[in-house]
Amino acid sequence: MLNKNMDLKYDVIVVGGGHAGCEAALAAARKGHNTLMLSVSLDNIAYMACNPSVGGTGKGHLVREIDALGGEMGVNADKTLIQLRMLNSGKGAAVQSLRAQTDKYDYHYKMKSVLESTEKLSLRQAEVVEVLTESGKVLGIKTVYGEKIFAPAVVLACGVYLNSEVIIGEYSRKAGPAGFNPAQHLTKNLKDLGFEIRRFKTGTPARVDGRTINYDKMERQDGENGAYSFSFLTRERLLDQVPCYLTYTTEKTHEIIRKNLSRAPMYSGQIKGTGTRYCPAIETKVVRFADKERHQIFIEPEGKNTTEAYIQGMSTSMPADVQIEMYRSIIGLENSHITRYAYAIEYDCINPLNINAAMRSKQIEGLYMAGQINGTSGYEEAAAQGLIAGINASLFLEGKESLILSRSDAYIGVLIDDLVTKGTNEPYRMMTSRAEYRLKLRQDNADLRLTEIGRSAGLVSSERYDLFLKKKELIEESFFKLKDKNYSPKEYGKLFNERNESLANGLKLYDMLKRPNICLVDIIKTFNVLSDLSQDLCDYIESEIKYEGYLKNQNELIKKMKKLENETLPETIDYNAVKGLRIEARQKLSLVKPRSLGQAANISGVSPADIAVLMIYLKE
Amino acid sequence: MLNKNMDLKYDVIVVGGGHAGCEAALAAARKGHNTLMLSVSLDNIAYMACNPSVGGTGKGHLVREIDALGGEMGVNADKTLIQLRMLNSGKGAAVQSLRAQTDKYDYHYKMKSVLESTEKLSLRQAEVVEVLTESGKVLGIKTVYGEKIFAPAVVLACGVYLNSEVIIGEYSRKAGPAGFNPAQHLTKNLKDLGFEIRRFKTGTPARVDGRTINYDKMERQDGENGAYSFSFLTRERLLDQVPCYLTYTTEKTHEIIRKNLSRAPMYSGQIKGTGTRYCPAIETKVVRFADKERHQIFIEPEGKNTTEAYIQGMSTSMPADVQIEMYRSIIGLENSHITRYAYAIEYDCINPLNINAAMRSKQIEGLYMAGQINGTSGYEEAAAQGLIAGINASLFLEGKESLILSRSDAYIGVLIDDLVTKGTNEPYRMMTSRAEYRLKLRQDNADLRLTEIGRSAGLVSSERYDLFLKKKELIEESFFKLKDKNYSPKEYGKLFNERNESLANGLKLYDMLKRPNICLVDIIKTFNVLSDLSQDLCDYIESEIKYEGYLKNQNELIKKMKKLENETLPETIDYNAVKGLRIEARQKLSLVKPRSLGQAANISGVSPADIAVLMIYLKE
Repeated sequence: MLNKNMDLKYDVIVVGGGHAGCEAALAAARKGHNTLMLSVSLDNIAYMACNPSVGGTGKGHLVREIDALGGEMGVNADKTLIQLRMLNSGKGAAVQSLRAQTDKYDYHYKMKSVLESTEKLSLRQAEVVEVLTESGKVLGIKTVYGEKIFAPAVVLACGVYLNSEVIIGEYSRKAGPAGFNPAQHLTKNLKDLGFEIRRFKTGTPARVDGRTINYDKMERQDGENGAYSFSFLTRERLLDQVPCYLTYTTEKTHEIIRKNLSRAPMYSGQIKGTGTRYCPAIETKVVRFADKERHQIFIEPEGKNTTEAYIQGMSTSMPADVQIEMYRSIIGLENSHITRYAYAIEYDCINPLNINAAMRSKQIEGLYMAGQINGTSGYEEAAAQGLIAGINASLFLEGKESLILSRSDAYIGVLIDDLVTKGTNEPYRMMTSRAEYRLKLRQDNADLRLTEIGRSAGLVSSERYDLFLKKKELIEESFFKLKDKNYSPKEYGKLFNERNESLANGLKLYDMLKRPNICLVDIIKTFNVLSDLSQDLCDYIESEIKYEGYLKNQNELIKKMKKLENETLPETIDYNAVKGLRIEARQKLSLVKPRSLGQAANISGVSPADIAVLMIYLKE
Repeated sequence: MLNKNMDLKYDVIVVGGGHAGCEAALAAARKGHNTLMLSVSLDNIAYMACNPSVGGTGKGHLVREIDALGGEMGVNADKTLIQLRMLNSGKGAAVQSLRAQTDKYDYHYKMKSVLESTEKLSLRQAEVVEVLTESGKVLGIKTVYGEKIFAPAVVLACGVYLNSEVIIGEYSRKAGPAGFNPAQHLTKNLKDLGFEIRRFKTGTPARVDGRTINYDKMERQDGENGAYSFSFLTRERLLDQVPCYLTYTTEKTHEIIRKNLSRAPMYSGQIKGTGTRYCPAIETKVVRFADKERHQIFIEPEGKNTTEAYIQGMSTSMPADVQIEMYRSIIGLENSHITRYAYAIEYDCINPLNINAAMRSKQIEGLYMAGQINGTSGYEEAAAQGLIAGINASLFLEGKESLILSRSDAYIGVLIDDLVTKGTNEPYRMMTSRAEYRLKLRQDNADLRLTEIGRSAGLVSSERYDLFLKKKELIEESFFKLKDKNYSPKEYGKLFNERNESLANGLKLYDMLKRPNICLVDIIKTFNVLSDLSQDLCDYIESEIKYEGYLKNQNELIKKMKKLENETLPETIDYNAVKGLRIEARQKLSLVKPRSLGQAANISGVSPADIAVLMIYLKE
């Protein structure tokens, strides 16, 4: 049941109701801890302030991993999606990723509803102004209404609400996304607690009345046949999907922007925060890529029952009058009516080097940080951190070891390792290129990589775990069937000839699949086996067999790195006293205080030679 | 189609997306005028900032009238209701009124969706800072982003967002309801335009996590069998209803309040605005009715998919810590968890004597005012005004006479007449006692009173009008059947004996119904007639027959008053020069400038003797 009698005392307090806060609060409550989630508004829970979309390259991997560990984002995306596609389905399995268009309003409601029906989880609308601490330990928080609420673990997931300011041309206002109130008082407290505060900036394009869009001039992009879902739990498939549309800016768009650059807050000096490299404002793109004749624009519906559309690629903080002109110069938007202007938002965040791999403040016991406050951008990046922070806050209360995923376990491991070892000087976004073991870290095997870990962490439900065990069985059976018997050239000859593959003697289905031109679908059809397999399982099995050699090599590499990983570096090492280390390495190592040699190796500025020095030092 | 090419030029601009703004914008657009609705947030369209409920005594009448005229509130309430009851069903027909619990979130979305699918209606999120005028005529508005948007008619429906401030104990913040941004700049402009500005105050109770409520200690109140709906268009009936609960404050509640009065913004001098008389804060009730041992509290669910509940009767602006104590002293709320604290909100509004019966500014042509800005409270009061303002702004553009409903036409007529002739010094709320012809102004005949008027005003759709004509036919037929033939005592004797009614000779069903103890249901059952009649029609027919004599008298009275109403009072009358008028009457008449003798008679401070003087003056 809920924490009834001790309203002002909880096990875990989660500050913020965004994508990080939701996962953190659900994780803590589901692990049995009385949890309070505070948000400046309960109407902004899981609010999609930017794209009405979940997933995408790299991000889709994160969602599957969150799901495998027992998080909620994948389930909620499945419940509320209005279009789903597997990106890069023509490319290698490593870069294939799910992307959904979701109903933005539904996403908020359904998530709120899940939170509200979770035992041990309470919600309250209140701005948090202070983290209460004593002798380096968290005591609780104080709200703007003056009340103190106590808990030994606090997760800060304030997102872009932290001291945020919305900017549209000459207009600016202290406000959070979508006009919600900002969290205005917490920054000062964080500074006092020793955090290094940065000012980052992000933005969002205008929303346009879909009735004023001429879709005939655009390229329609439909969803797929519904073979996939984010969550390994989801059984229902969406069949009735809503289309998106592709279009382009024109030379006129660029002209309007250039003509009005003096009024652009990005260039007039009004905006000082560091922006997102991979989601730049359109004015930045026009200035930076001056020779590009057009930029691609993607029209996303904001929901099933609204005509508002999100104009991806047209993020801007230009003044309102310029925005109307700009948008109307885009192909198909000639008569468009803006319902909500694009805006930039500046906000405070911390230097993630201030936290450790458990997502805990290095200074304060019990204080966890997750999401945009750590300098990331994106719902999925936020949710992944929220989940881990929520799990680790719980494990801390349980007196257990923190859950730390390695770079070879998951994209989540890559994300957090990047943050806490390399830091980031701009909003960090996940991409497949950030992972060195991306052939292993596929979206099709996220559950096989992580469900056991989630189960040990206490977050994977029996329902999920049973499904997982059944799936593992099914995989074994399938491999068995594929290796079961030899087929003669007579039996497989027709297929091989059609596919331009040379014949051999007796071949197992397994071996046939290793041939580049033979797919699992061919085998299923030709030999009438495994015909009940889901698309997901087909993908997995095909990847495992086709990439078997590469995967073996990758696993060797991972083992080597693991060895390094396992070489613990005591926190007490005085790097300035380690002979042979380069000066930069000394500085970086002193700053980051890596837990292991492996982590040390990932710090930018620490060379393989430095690692060799450290190895010797450790042996001594 | 939408106003595509001239984004900055419309026929009508509606400022505000609340219950008044929605009706105004829909009315104008449906009447064929290019309309732009502006709101500080598009997420607060038709937002139920207070009760998750529509209707109630007097208010239910307004909703039916809005519906009969072609408004949207009734239709939207029917679409989103989760419980429906006919209040006072044991009392006279005049005071019977529908009351619905609605899904607060659904209400917002469905209304937004209707607006978005209305031709000629565009929405935009922007705060309006100025009404542009020239030589006493409206030119358009200016937004906080600096853009000027032009229209010859503007409806101001800013609600409680006008320069509003939210107060919770010692905490206060310039904010609109539910943490939305306020409209901070318009008041100054309204003052410059000659409006008299007042500061009113309203409030809302806390929302509580329904899982922490002990409903066993409360009295359950279920909805009814689904015989009714608000809209005359609605055919579907809600069968799966959600319960509400009744409970009470305790002596402890009152003690807590008394003990903390020094911290109550209502009593510390922090709140200066005039509050709602009929929805007072709990601290006001405790102070004002010091001898009352308990106050009734009503628990309303906020929606179908949320556990949040609205605690009617516990409006307060006490500090957060006191609120927790107060709420926990209520029977069944001993362990309650507050999700959103109660708050008071102060806001600016105008003196409604500054507008005329068409809801137009007396000073500025084309400027209409509707809703809370005119000093009213309540969604229904707001919607009614919005509808009339939207219709009249449109009629103005069409060069037609304004639609002015009289006090004998509708509660809407009473509402507006009260506002523009008597003014109001506190938030005005509709009640059946405000209507002098309330036997005529029933909710069961709202369509018969108003649909023709709505049709002439150009807002009643053919669908609605056809249904209305069919209903009229059905009524005629029904009356014919009831008057068709005489029944002998043998035929009706059993029923009359059972009901303790004395026999006569041959009786028509019509005459039987006049007997106080005989209901239409008895007649339908006994004589097997009119068995297909809807509950609504039964109510109507029964009222018309039972009250026939009273209704005749009332109609005579109305005729007399109409005569007075028709006696136009020229705006140029110099009341100071009219001999025989009392000084107070001179002042009030000069101030209000009534259109007619009838209106003059309704001004508080104008006596029947003064009216006699005026009648003589007019004849001369």
